[in-house]
Amino acid sequence: MKATVTVMLKDGVLDPQGKAIGHALHGLGFGNVGEVRAGKVIELELAETDPGRARTQAEDMARKLLANTVIESFKVEVA
Amino acid sequence: MKATVTVMLKDGVLDPQGKAIGHALHGLGFGNVGEVRAGKVIELELAETDPGRARTQAEDMARKLLANTVIESFKVEVA
Repeated sequence: MKATVTVMLKDGVLDPQGKAIGHALHGLGFGNVGEVRAGKVIELELAETDPGRARTQAEDMARKLLANTVIESFKVEVA
Repeated sequence: MKATVTVMLKDGVLDPQGKAIGHALHGLGFGNVGEVRAGKVIELELAETDPGRARTQAEDMARKLLANTVIESFKVEVA
């Protein structure tokens, strides 16, 4: 199965990368852009056929490696 | 409206970051992980109420700044 883990900085954590992207978009003439947040997405190919177990494994990986849960939140989609 | 742009390396483009994550997951005991691909996600707050126009704007931003379309593909979700 394929699991997709999306990792974003938590609300309230300063996001300099998102800010920089927002500034660059304004500079390119996209004046109607408000807040911009940048994050990571990790697509995992898992040798697991049960969606529930695949989700549990991906969440475990996110907690142990993919996300820094002090400042980042993550969500897992399984397909 | 909120637009989410997901940028991934195109198939066939070497993804060292994904490879490194895969190795690290194996090292942590997640032996059933196959291919891993890493990408970026950018959440944009747009001062636009029409979903179609918001999508067109976000696609324009992706082509001009957020993605390098030589080696990356992107998809846009509007909510």
